[in-house]
Amino acid sequence: MTIQEKARAMKKISPHTANTDIETRNAALNAISGAVTAHRDEIERANKEDIAAAEENGIPAPVLKRLRFGDEKIRDVLDGISQLIRLEDPVGKIQLRRQLDEGLILERETVPIGVIGIIFEARPDAMVQVSSLCLKSGNCSILKGGSEARRTNRALFDIIYEAAVSAGMPDGFMMLAETHDDIDQLLKCDDSVDLLIPRGSNAFVRYIMDNTKIPVMGHADGICHVYVDRDADIDMAVKIIIDAKTQYPAACNAAETVLIHRDIADGLLPKLGEAFRTAGVELRGTPEVRERTECAEAAEEDFSTEYLDFIISAKLVDDIDEAIDHINTYGSHHTDSIITNDDAAAEHFMNLVDSAGVYRNCSTRFADGFRYGFGAEVGISTGKIHARGPVGLEGLVTYKYKLYGSGQIVGDYVSGARQFHFKDLQEERK
Amino acid sequence: MTIQEKARAMKKISPHTANTDIETRNAALNAISGAVTAHRDEIERANKEDIAAAEENGIPAPVLKRLRFGDEKIRDVLDGISQLIRLEDPVGKIQLRRQLDEGLILERETVPIGVIGIIFEARPDAMVQVSSLCLKSGNCSILKGGSEARRTNRALFDIIYEAAVSAGMPDGFMMLAETHDDIDQLLKCDDSVDLLIPRGSNAFVRYIMDNTKIPVMGHADGICHVYVDRDADIDMAVKIIIDAKTQYPAACNAAETVLIHRDIADGLLPKLGEAFRTAGVELRGTPEVRERTECAEAAEEDFSTEYLDFIISAKLVDDIDEAIDHINTYGSHHTDSIITNDDAAAEHFMNLVDSAGVYRNCSTRFADGFRYGFGAEVGISTGKIHARGPVGLEGLVTYKYKLYGSGQIVGDYVSGARQFHFKDLQEERK
Repeated sequence: MTIQEKARAMKKISPHTANTDIETRNAALNAISGAVTAHRDEIERANKEDIAAAEENGIPAPVLKRLRFGDEKIRDVLDGISQLIRLEDPVGKIQLRRQLDEGLILERETVPIGVIGIIFEARPDAMVQVSSLCLKSGNCSILKGGSEARRTNRALFDIIYEAAVSAGMPDGFMMLAETHDDIDQLLKCDDSVDLLIPRGSNAFVRYIMDNTKIPVMGHADGICHVYVDRDADIDMAVKIIIDAKTQYPAACNAAETVLIHRDIADGLLPKLGEAFRTAGVELRGTPEVRERTECAEAAEEDFSTEYLDFIISAKLVDDIDEAIDHINTYGSHHTDSIITNDDAAAEHFMNLVDSAGVYRNCSTRFADGFRYGFGAEVGISTGKIHARGPVGLEGLVTYKYKLYGSGQIVGDYVSGARQFHFKDLQEERK
Repeated sequence: MTIQEKARAMKKISPHTANTDIETRNAALNAISGAVTAHRDEIERANKEDIAAAEENGIPAPVLKRLRFGDEKIRDVLDGISQLIRLEDPVGKIQLRRQLDEGLILERETVPIGVIGIIFEARPDAMVQVSSLCLKSGNCSILKGGSEARRTNRALFDIIYEAAVSAGMPDGFMMLAETHDDIDQLLKCDDSVDLLIPRGSNAFVRYIMDNTKIPVMGHADGICHVYVDRDADIDMAVKIIIDAKTQYPAACNAAETVLIHRDIADGLLPKLGEAFRTAGVELRGTPEVRERTECAEAAEEDFSTEYLDFIISAKLVDDIDEAIDHINTYGSHHTDSIITNDDAAAEHFMNLVDSAGVYRNCSTRFADGFRYGFGAEVGISTGKIHARGPVGLEGLVTYKYKLYGSGQIVGDYVSGARQFHFKDLQEERK
């Protein structure tokens, strides 16, 4: 069967997956946890083969590090599953219960999205996380991990799938895609896949977004800013900027540009420049920045570049509105922070910056599902439709309207024989 | 300026439109209501010209009827605006307020989507409705109405825009697109338009969906079903089916197919066939249906046809699961109703049918924003991402995360110097 035929078959299974109760879904997560523990040797064997092949192919060290799935990472994913089991069921929440007329009750209830395709990096821990998030939220999933992790992913998938189905999940509720050609086939499954979540490089995510009719959730760029307002604590600003840039520069929520109010530039820049030098960060500044600290010259394109490295650009602004305008123009609507002691300035910035996350006096690196207390995340969305920012379980559900009648017809309400009497009833789980 | 340049300019205005307070937005709606009343003559003059041109071009009677914008329709749109003013502000709702750690507070707040493009039929009342929904929800809008209503729309747009801006809405927060070529330009504005809502024929909506990278909300088909279960009230079933088919056959929520449990077919079909004949509905049935009542023969393609007319298809099913499977396969995930006295059967159907609306013992024609008590709707979505079913104000907002810190950096939480202490705080409007 082609991926398209398999996806169509999965589409037929998806209402049954959606209809599983939370006890079954949690039991499946428990079974997965047990099975991963029991088959540890098998997983480690597959992972060693992936690593050997990667080393042979001269894969860079950071990729190798992410590929390695040792004791510590296995413990982390098992912890993650335990946390996920404890999270409230995102499915079956009544968001609205309204009497439209006597004996005519409308309910809006959360339901799984259906079939979700997730394409992720060569990180075996991601395989466990995304599959268990989809399972907990009652979704069918088509999973495609980075090819360097091929053997580990196959071992993990088989273990996870068998454990989940033994615990009562429907046959065929999960599927592993394994080749790059599978991705191109998956992109054509707009009749059966409800949502695609691509993770990976900017170019890869953009390719997915540009080549499918399926709704896509995620982000291509992460061009995050820290803006230091005129009235700011300089030491706090330096500490936050260094964290936002250096704590994990390869992350999408790392800062790429610092904007500095002209009035605070003389006080801030010498200290900030020194801190960058100490941290091994290359600063690229406009001429005005370079007058105040020694650094490389920023070109126009620096301000629309996601370095993902120990490089940062900087420029001065005349006022907060210039900073906001710069961020809305050059940014990627991901996460942007203002450092200020001024409440009104903070609110102005947070209201007018058009990003998924707008922060005051803290690091952009907090933009993360775990740090938001979501237990886990399936990705971070810079789109505005459906889910925005870090996407946890809530982003994997939609809703349906249920209308309970007793013979009502619209003709009676149009003719005036009956009138609507809207009355909101208590919203509660059934 | 091209539409693309204008849309880019609007994108820059959109954070300011989003940041208007509800008093300004309601004052603008009030001003619009006053201006429409004051400029009634002008509007009627433009409408008469549109009608004269339409008559000259031999436009069909139903289109002419929708095009006419007389006293009654003007009163209706003014009533609609009054209702909209009374609706709660959809913007600025705090959906989540969580302490991540001492002095680090996360809020999730509803915000307008930004720039919305709406393409709608040649109905001047739609012009007023969609523009006021976008305004109330703090969105910028690009409006393109059916070309037959060109003069009326231009008159209405000028009146609405001037009233709204005089009341404090930002210059350029609304824009009228007037030519068919404008639509093709609009489809290319994926750098500045956040959402497209196309309304109109199946072919037109599908064209929009297939030719843009902008997220699209709406529906192409409306293939709605009524399924009569084995244990159902036959008179109720007949009454509901006749309403669902005939009350307004051109609507997307009209029923196109009746599915009948084999066990109730002998009792139901002769009565139903008679009711169809009386109502002037052409029934197209499978051989089993034709054995029980006189009707035309249904071809396979009948079950995937949206007639939008006094035609309906019918077939028997062996059990409820066959009905569910038929609906999930041939339907358009819009609205489907079960007629049954059996609670368990109703829940089974409503859980497994994968549609925006799943009904029990009432007409599919209730799928409508007004009938759901939303005050108004901008359209009905059969997609699962973002909004589903009738879309009112709530579907025109998204959210942003605001994080209020006091110098926090992620490094401290990774090193273990600090720990997260998640604590949900009261969710309330600020």
